[in-house]
Amino acid sequence: MADPATISPATLLKDELDIVIPTIRNLDFLEMWRPFFQPYHLIIVQDGDPSKAIKVPEGFDYELYNRNDINRILGPKASCISFKDSACRCFGYMVSKKKYIYTIDDDCFVAKDPSGKDINALEQHIKNLLSPSTPFFFNTLYDPYRAGADFVRGYPFSLREGVPTAVSHGLWLNIPDYDAPTQLVKPLERNTRYVDAVMTIPKGTLFPMCGMNLAFDRELIGPAMYFGLMGDGQPIGRYDDMWAGWCTKVICDHLGWGVKTGLPYIWHSKASNPFVNLRKEYKGIYWQEELIPFFQSVTLPKDCTSVQKCYIEIANQVKAKLGKVDDYFNKLADAMVTWIEAWDELNPSGASKSSDLPNGVSK
Amino acid sequence: MADPATISPATLLKDELDIVIPTIRNLDFLEMWRPFFQPYHLIIVQDGDPSKAIKVPEGFDYELYNRNDINRILGPKASCISFKDSACRCFGYMVSKKKYIYTIDDDCFVAKDPSGKDINALEQHIKNLLSPSTPFFFNTLYDPYRAGADFVRGYPFSLREGVPTAVSHGLWLNIPDYDAPTQLVKPLERNTRYVDAVMTIPKGTLFPMCGMNLAFDRELIGPAMYFGLMGDGQPIGRYDDMWAGWCTKVICDHLGWGVKTGLPYIWHSKASNPFVNLRKEYKGIYWQEELIPFFQSVTLPKDCTSVQKCYIEIANQVKAKLGKVDDYFNKLADAMVTWIEAWDELNPSGASKSSDLPNGVSK
Repeated sequence: MADPATISPATLLKDELDIVIPTIRNLDFLEMWRPFFQPYHLIIVQDGDPSKAIKVPEGFDYELYNRNDINRILGPKASCISFKDSACRCFGYMVSKKKYIYTIDDDCFVAKDPSGKDINALEQHIKNLLSPSTPFFFNTLYDPYRAGADFVRGYPFSLREGVPTAVSHGLWLNIPDYDAPTQLVKPLERNTRYVDAVMTIPKGTLFPMCGMNLAFDRELIGPAMYFGLMGDGQPIGRYDDMWAGWCTKVICDHLGWGVKTGLPYIWHSKASNPFVNLRKEYKGIYWQEELIPFFQSVTLPKDCTSVQKCYIEIANQVKAKLGKVDDYFNKLADAMVTWIEAWDELNPSGASKSSDLPNGVSK
Repeated sequence: MADPATISPATLLKDELDIVIPTIRNLDFLEMWRPFFQPYHLIIVQDGDPSKAIKVPEGFDYELYNRNDINRILGPKASCISFKDSACRCFGYMVSKKKYIYTIDDDCFVAKDPSGKDINALEQHIKNLLSPSTPFFFNTLYDPYRAGADFVRGYPFSLREGVPTAVSHGLWLNIPDYDAPTQLVKPLERNTRYVDAVMTIPKGTLFPMCGMNLAFDRELIGPAMYFGLMGDGQPIGRYDDMWAGWCTKVICDHLGWGVKTGLPYIWHSKASNPFVNLRKEYKGIYWQEELIPFFQSVTLPKDCTSVQKCYIEIANQVKAKLGKVDDYFNKLADAMVTWIEAWDELNPSGASKSSDLPNGVSK
């Protein structure tokens, strides 16, 4: 096995990874990330009032898109991109021309490992993405490709090659990613437990994917990373990343790719307002009781051999089976189709090969 | 949720848990465990020459069974209990009258946590068994019932009650549980990574269950914890716990119970001889390539409502589908049926209610 400890991924992927940041404010948080992020290109998706100027610290290489840019680039298809919600970040995935994406929220800072050392979250995500996943059988010593670990006794040898990793889901120290009811019940809870593990989420198992600290292989799974219709004009918020996670996991399971969770941690600085969150979430809290069984039972036919085909098939099933839960899901299913159309328009011949850059504000 | 941090499990289960130890030597290793094990009753299963006297340190409460005892108690059914292999430990599960079992190898010592404190492995296992499992959806912050953790955003509320925990699978610092090929390739590898997590292995996912440091709810899952035919007269060894783990996991998935892995760690002191292990394992290494798909595709009919019924059904399927892999699996399937017959004979009216103690050497 290639020893990931010998990979120097940060330099390796400098020209193959974009960092996507949705924001409504000046990006002072980047100062703390400078040692890790400065070599990379940033795609900033400005949410809310497009006339507001967003300040980006000196020395970062970035392009910035506000709502006017999104509308101009996508035309009528811009309707699939959420407004006044961080779900707008997925526009950045669409306009990127790189193989990998890392996305992070602007209230996330550099965390420290138990030895007190700053955690290079991006480097760990790259390690996770560059080493295989093991979705078909559980390894009790966690990531078998990590230095100092391996497959344990009883692990079938035919499965030890692993499969490509599509998603690396990172975690959060300090403020955990709780829903509004849990925030309300446990206002003082902080995550102080550093769990030194990366693991593959097994095939057939769904998980709550958080978009706060997330990396993925855009060439593999990009078209499934749609963050849905949230925020302005929509009956729901804070389910953007969940929706993307459920669709992505079902498609990865179908196409034989892996989804990892665990390291790296970021430091999540500030709990969002639980009362506001409750208003955004409450429909999702009861809808998800139907959504989870739906996604657990989705099966994709064999001729769904591309992410796009899988995604359109899921959109059809959403309309057929969830439309009766609420008309919102009919709208969402339509938006999913629009998203794929827009993706294919901007990425006509494979994601990383096109040099047809859309016209945002570049520095 | 009940806060497991407030449970004082060690005292709570003093009369409800037996510690089962298979051995061929004097049990000096118990000295190190004295502070943690002394309140409990031990069931020692002596392997090999029954005329050899096994010394147990002063002050422990124990019963000891050697091969003569096993033959006397089980009569012709003793054929299902392996000889010259630590698989014989499952005889101890059968004769126990307690609700819970903890089993540990005699080359396992007390490990230290990162703060340098001795780990009370038994206490952690009891915590794992007394708090629910979450097999239907993955929680990214691991065990949601642990102090300082909870269910994250996007976790369905209908699943937060969890399900009963049947198995707690603990891990090993120092010598990892590798197969012979990995031992040969990495003779110097030591597990030094303390991963501070307990998690439920998702429904539908198999794992390699190691019997070195294992606890389970005997009343729930005891009859599935058969360690198979290994050692003397058999073509295979070192797959006893694997076999039990695959059967157990399939039955727990069917009956809606949970299997946890992670904490606690023990200190595994000594690697077994990889050349000897290779001789024991080599058939298992290729057989498991057929066994895993078999167990992944086992389905149990709805009328399998007890562990015994499930187990007999699996035995039938083993004979039907694995008999052609090797005649060994026909013998094993028969032994599985014998095991259930013997279990029911010794446990006539529910495991913990009978006072009909078998006649071993009691102290």
